[in-house]
Amino acid sequence: MDLGLLALQDMEKERETLQVWKKRVGQELDSVIAFWMEHSHDQEHGQVWMYCRLYRSFERFHRVELLDAAKAGGEFLLRYARVAPPGKKCAFVLTRDGRPVKVQRTIFSECFYTMAMNELWKVTGEMHYQNEAVEMMDQIIHWVREDPAGLGRPQLSGTLATEPMAVPMMLLSLVEQLGEDDEELTNKYAELGDWCAHRILQHIQAGMDKLYWRMYQRMAKSSLVALEDIRTQCHTLEAGWFMLQYALRKGDHKLRMHVIDKFLLLPFHSGWDPEHGGLFYFQDADDLCPTQLEWNMKLWWPHSEAMIAFLMGYSDSGDPTLLDLFYQVAEYTFRQGFSRFRDPEYGEWFGYLNQEGKVVLTIKGGPFKAASTCRGAWPCASRFWEPYSNALDPPP
Amino acid sequence: MDLGLLALQDMEKERETLQVWKKRVGQELDSVIAFWMEHSHDQEHGQVWMYCRLYRSFERFHRVELLDAAKAGGEFLLRYARVAPPGKKCAFVLTRDGRPVKVQRTIFSECFYTMAMNELWKVTGEMHYQNEAVEMMDQIIHWVREDPAGLGRPQLSGTLATEPMAVPMMLLSLVEQLGEDDEELTNKYAELGDWCAHRILQHIQAGMDKLYWRMYQRMAKSSLVALEDIRTQCHTLEAGWFMLQYALRKGDHKLRMHVIDKFLLLPFHSGWDPEHGGLFYFQDADDLCPTQLEWNMKLWWPHSEAMIAFLMGYSDSGDPTLLDLFYQVAEYTFRQGFSRFRDPEYGEWFGYLNQEGKVVLTIKGGPFKAASTCRGAWPCASRFWEPYSNALDPPP
Repeated sequence: MDLGLLALQDMEKERETLQVWKKRVGQELDSVIAFWMEHSHDQEHGQVWMYCRLYRSFERFHRVELLDAAKAGGEFLLRYARVAPPGKKCAFVLTRDGRPVKVQRTIFSECFYTMAMNELWKVTGEMHYQNEAVEMMDQIIHWVREDPAGLGRPQLSGTLATEPMAVPMMLLSLVEQLGEDDEELTNKYAELGDWCAHRILQHIQAGMDKLYWRMYQRMAKSSLVALEDIRTQCHTLEAGWFMLQYALRKGDHKLRMHVIDKFLLLPFHSGWDPEHGGLFYFQDADDLCPTQLEWNMKLWWPHSEAMIAFLMGYSDSGDPTLLDLFYQVAEYTFRQGFSRFRDPEYGEWFGYLNQEGKVVLTIKGGPFKAASTCRGAWPCASRFWEPYSNALDPPP
Repeated sequence: MDLGLLALQDMEKERETLQVWKKRVGQELDSVIAFWMEHSHDQEHGQVWMYCRLYRSFERFHRVELLDAAKAGGEFLLRYARVAPPGKKCAFVLTRDGRPVKVQRTIFSECFYTMAMNELWKVTGEMHYQNEAVEMMDQIIHWVREDPAGLGRPQLSGTLATEPMAVPMMLLSLVEQLGEDDEELTNKYAELGDWCAHRILQHIQAGMDKLYWRMYQRMAKSSLVALEDIRTQCHTLEAGWFMLQYALRKGDHKLRMHVIDKFLLLPFHSGWDPEHGGLFYFQDADDLCPTQLEWNMKLWWPHSEAMIAFLMGYSDSGDPTLLDLFYQVAEYTFRQGFSRFRDPEYGEWFGYLNQEGKVVLTIKGGPFKAASTCRGAWPCASRFWEPYSNALDPPP
């Protein structure tokens, strides 16, 4: 058989597979949104980030009830999210009528608040949302780079100075969110973005081919103290996704290759379960036994984040290895006829599987999984990978 | 065959089984202690409660190196446990040289501190240990019954007023610890013991045959608000064990039967996994899906606590049902030829199995499992069931 013809047939087959996945991804988005619209839509107190992002990104979701609910949610947040105004600390959970139930001593609730306000401004053009976003952002930067005292966690003399990757990672995603189509804020936060990227990259230990989720300050004798809560897996592929965006914006080809290598391929290969498939929840960078009881479970969001990261990587580089890894994760996630994340009966996904892939929690929403966990502040970003499914378009 | 002879043979067989278990329990204690003596003995900073309890309870552990290490641990705690003296809040974790790493906003570190100091006094007769125990106990009572502000957890308007059973349960165990062979303290804490027992009993919902681990204040319309973090399993059997001690001390037969019914049999039957055996870690009182990812795992300490509780119940009542339940848990725990808690190769127990009984964490010690997790303050009480193995003595 003619070799050229064979290559052409392969390409045609690949093209068909790509089209099938693109279609499936679109259907999946519709079905998940339909589930939440049916069971969790709140006309009164709304849901902000997700509805705004849907409204402005997809023609089919450009619907007035989404916009109204998003605005209602925005007003709810403005009124109730802060625990002790004019202080900026936000609650992690509120009652339906706006009383604080739980406050975390971290920056994350405030980051999601900022994202929600910025999205709302992008959709409505109303300046008070954007002012709120920028003021909160400045407060977060102050907590991270100058003085964390306002977060309420006492400094203890025995605690090693550490930097979890989550902090610069989250800030970098805020830089992307606020800077999108906004030259002024892009410039305002340019130095911050570089700082975040620099901090994230420090988690890679040169020469060791290891990525430490929680980086310890260099000690006198050892360059790293490997404690029990070091994690290589978990959100690492999400960090890779934000770093890819950053490298792309910078036009830094070398950095992009480094990110693909260290933040996508490295954690994927160490985190993929060779026996049962899927990504472990926690792993120890030094292959010690994690202390988290749920370390070997398979969770919905690392898989979502992995699919986004690999699609982005493929979209930017055209590297077929990354597309193959997308397929690998997607096949694990969507595989029919076996209990995986997707619920063919009632829609949406189960969030938590055991190592073998069996559903352990039958709930669709919970403290860390919902369309509106934090009254709209929770980004659900990882479900929004349809934009990146453009990478699945057949090559021209 | 003569029926009397048959009954006699049965009794003889039962007697043999009891002897086998009694011997096995003793061997198990020796083997576990040998493991920790080899791998975790700290001549310098010691280990308090466990060493003291061993020293004074067992002839074969009445050894000077245990006493010396216990005293060293006591001095370490006296010097470093408090985070900000003269304040009484204690650290949950300290570095080896005594700097605080972690502080919990609960009473439990202080309770274990109190137990350690009281044991040390019982062994050494040195009054300053006992003074320390009683002063800390008074502070704990103040936090629980008068003002929790000193624990450092902010009161939020949206948080439902709740009472986890762990608080009166822990206090009741302190009442037992401090009152043992001590008439003065028995009298001092008699009212507190009654209060604890009363609070614990309120977790049983009359007519519902349900035991709520975390009790919510009665609301206007419903007598209980069932929230996500209600637990029926977990430490419930431990609460039963403390309540049995209390009922026995009171000579209250009716209460004892109630405790056996509601705190031993009820949680055991709802918490035992009919498919794979073993006790679940978390369960929801209303049979909803728990939100804890590790809810279906099998942990070492609920099984230890169950064995203690059933042995105590059998010892007090002679009810063969309770002995059978002891056998059922013990057979799950010690079963040979299948991966369970016991490690036949290197000794000690694995702490964490999946639902099917496979070892998930290969560590022998961790943040909540060790001989000296909190520098001696951790009680390891649940390993101390040899005293109750006297229940296994053949009936006269």
